[in-house]
Amino acid sequence: MSEVLIVGSIAYDSLKTPYGSVAKTLGGAATYSSLAASLFTPVRMMGPVGDDFKETELQMLRRHKINTDLVTREKGKTFYWKGYYEDDMALAHTVKIDLGVFETFNPHITGKARTVPYVFLAAIHPELQLNVLNQMTKPKYVVLDTRDLWINITKKALLKVLKKTDLVVVNDQETRLLTGEMHLLKGARALQKLGPKTVIVKKGEHGAMLFGQGYTFLSPAVPLDYVVDPTGAGDTFAGAFIGYLAKQNKITPDVLKKAVIAGNLVASYTVQGFGTKSIAALTRASLRKRAAEYHKFASIPKVNL
Amino acid sequence: MSEVLIVGSIAYDSLKTPYGSVAKTLGGAATYSSLAASLFTPVRMMGPVGDDFKETELQMLRRHKINTDLVTREKGKTFYWKGYYEDDMALAHTVKIDLGVFETFNPHITGKARTVPYVFLAAIHPELQLNVLNQMTKPKYVVLDTRDLWINITKKALLKVLKKTDLVVVNDQETRLLTGEMHLLKGARALQKLGPKTVIVKKGEHGAMLFGQGYTFLSPAVPLDYVVDPTGAGDTFAGAFIGYLAKQNKITPDVLKKAVIAGNLVASYTVQGFGTKSIAALTRASLRKRAAEYHKFASIPKVNL
Repeated sequence: MSEVLIVGSIAYDSLKTPYGSVAKTLGGAATYSSLAASLFTPVRMMGPVGDDFKETELQMLRRHKINTDLVTREKGKTFYWKGYYEDDMALAHTVKIDLGVFETFNPHITGKARTVPYVFLAAIHPELQLNVLNQMTKPKYVVLDTRDLWINITKKALLKVLKKTDLVVVNDQETRLLTGEMHLLKGARALQKLGPKTVIVKKGEHGAMLFGQGYTFLSPAVPLDYVVDPTGAGDTFAGAFIGYLAKQNKITPDVLKKAVIAGNLVASYTVQGFGTKSIAALTRASLRKRAAEYHKFASIPKVNL
Repeated sequence: MSEVLIVGSIAYDSLKTPYGSVAKTLGGAATYSSLAASLFTPVRMMGPVGDDFKETELQMLRRHKINTDLVTREKGKTFYWKGYYEDDMALAHTVKIDLGVFETFNPHITGKARTVPYVFLAAIHPELQLNVLNQMTKPKYVVLDTRDLWINITKKALLKVLKKTDLVVVNDQETRLLTGEMHLLKGARALQKLGPKTVIVKKGEHGAMLFGQGYTFLSPAVPLDYVVDPTGAGDTFAGAFIGYLAKQNKITPDVLKKAVIAGNLVASYTVQGFGTKSIAALTRASLRKRAAEYHKFASIPKVNL
């Protein structure tokens, strides 16, 4: 069992979906992914919060055995996102975004934290991602997330950090944007040439595809009777993925595949509640039950041809 | 091993995709699905062709051990479709459609053909589908395909034939159109209440989902390096599905799941050639090789949680 460092946004979100709305609920990529990773392994969470950040949120994170020493309280407001989803919930529409203390975030890692072997860099500015990596003494496995914004405006820095990355998590649109390849399989292979030996393409309700060295693997998404809020699904996936990996502390195709499945399983909870509520409430018993159902759903019998 | 009766269009297609074009190539739902089913079991193919239909096409079908006694030659032209696909090949655009002899098609089944146990009704007018079923003495398993056109203009007749159907094959849009349910899982369950105990939702490049009595199953699509022409993928899927089923001559969840996989495997060939070319050339050795690769790609290891 190894420790994971997770760096990303910690936010308050106000969001509306066809199924309801919540105001100023705890969110942010680092929050979702840390809660998810903490199901499997010890987590150090890193990111800035403002004066308005409630102490009870930090207490909740600590109850999940998340080390919050690197969650720094800065003068100003916590990152704030206000947005909504339309009927099919395929796209998040931003109404307001206030970077707050995140605008001047300057990651500073000292002592034992620099030796954490597993690192997840959520989709923040690639220069910040590089900055973090440069402070780590011996990262064993680095997982990187990014988004269209960074591909569009900071591609050079992103290509730099990709070279130091073991695995990148993208969606199909980001794959196209980064590589110019329209075809997903070719795009994923083009990404592997940019640095990361392994690529995960998230396909939302269609699951996640893993591209390794000489193998490809698909884990379908968990079929869900209802979805109320898709916010944080990708972050949860990535957090559970690296958490599972760090727990096994072994990088093999088999472990990577299982980590993808763990990512899909845990993410299926996030979307069934608003904000971080349902991922924070997730129990191992519930997860095991869903895993058993998932295996029935996705197991592929041998066909006699 | 049981026989399958397949009723549907036999056509000449002129089509253009980003990868090339072909003029007046053999196509039609009955053609694709019969070629696919014939990989597994004896097939009787039924549908009308015109004076222009080449004898060599019939010879090719017979070489695949397809019984063409119910392929009737009528005065007039063979069903003709001209269309094209744009970059992502998600949608077939029709340029010209000429029903030809299909306009007056009046299915007439006599003798032993009426006792064939497995029946696939491709997406023709629901009144024709009913007409065929009424002539069968003891169909053991009836698989039905349909399309948005029939849902829109002949829903009443379609609901009638659905009641006599064991399994219906639809896509997500057709599911919504037929049931009014936006949510795929709820839509599939609503379809089950209309007659067919089992529902397959085809999701194109994302695979096919099987909804049985008390279970759900997903078979991902075969990941393909290239696709040149999506025409006939759904018909191939359905043909291979019922062919596999008829070969086993046993309806269990396990056999249904394997039949879905067989459908995905065989359909993956159709899209890699223009028209029926590649499905007609498919060998068992090639299919077995692809099946082995597919199992590596889609097999879900047990996760330790």
